[in-house]
Amino acid sequence: MSDAFDPETDLRITRDLAAPPGLVWRCWSEPALFRRWFCPSPVEVTECVLALRPGGRFMTVMRLPDGTEMPSEGCFLEVVPERRLVFTDAMTAGWRPGDAPFMTAAIDLAPTATGTRYSAHVMHRDAAARARHEEMGFAGGWGTALEQLGALAHSLIS
Amino acid sequence: MSDAFDPETDLRITRDLAAPPGLVWRCWSEPALFRRWFCPSPVEVTECVLALRPGGRFMTVMRLPDGTEMPSEGCFLEVVPERRLVFTDAMTAGWRPGDAPFMTAAIDLAPTATGTRYSAHVMHRDAAARARHEEMGFAGGWGTALEQLGALAHSLIS
Repeated sequence: MSDAFDPETDLRITRDLAAPPGLVWRCWSEPALFRRWFCPSPVEVTECVLALRPGGRFMTVMRLPDGTEMPSEGCFLEVVPERRLVFTDAMTAGWRPGDAPFMTAAIDLAPTATGTRYSAHVMHRDAAARARHEEMGFAGGWGTALEQLGALAHSLIS
Repeated sequence: MSDAFDPETDLRITRDLAAPPGLVWRCWSEPALFRRWFCPSPVEVTECVLALRPGGRFMTVMRLPDGTEMPSEGCFLEVVPERRLVFTDAMTAGWRPGDAPFMTAAIDLAPTATGTRYSAHVMHRDAAARARHEEMGFAGGWGTALEQLGALAHSLIS
């Protein structure tokens, strides 16, 4: 399923990963794996909750190199194992409205001859939020995380 | 399925309606019926879109007696025909973050000997939004709408 892309408010990134969708999905669903790729190094994920079902909790705590911890609460919206994952910070677990809605991300995984085409479509609340995300380094940050994800998933090939 | 009730941020209302869940569901899913009960008279629903699927658009335009039109955009989150409906204004169609998140409502329908027990659980963004909703006349407004819904669904019994 694809979503309409609105250049005013949306950003996207696509990468070809050298591992099949099943292993990429493991890196998204197993906390011990998830923590190793989701934030571009040297930012670390110190805690996470991945309740992979519609309305399920998606919580992460990121630790910056200076020790600052940044907690984030959201929920999953669509979960199709090995295929599609949509999550947002506009709501928290059990569909409660969030207090700082910023974005929804739709991740699509498609099998390819060499692994997985990974596409992320990020929808922001408005053009200002999109611009802020771009300035925060969306392309570099998500790009680095996806390189980490690709390497980790590849290392799981037995 | 029931949701945890948080007295700080939530409101709820329950009514026994004299019509079976199938007819109550028709009043929620058919625009021509929906427009006749969703707003307490003399407020009118002049337009609506009811895309009853997860992420589907839920749009209404209400017209106040002085002619003012109040559009509202949201989306459906859970749809279990004749049983459960969850919607929010924290997101719009296709899971886009909304620009004025206020509440999520979970509606549960349970068959009873005489018709349907209709329970609405409304979760607000914070305690202030809950208080504002209460001051706007939540109990009276939703209560009147549910009386209208019960009478309309009852009139459909053939």
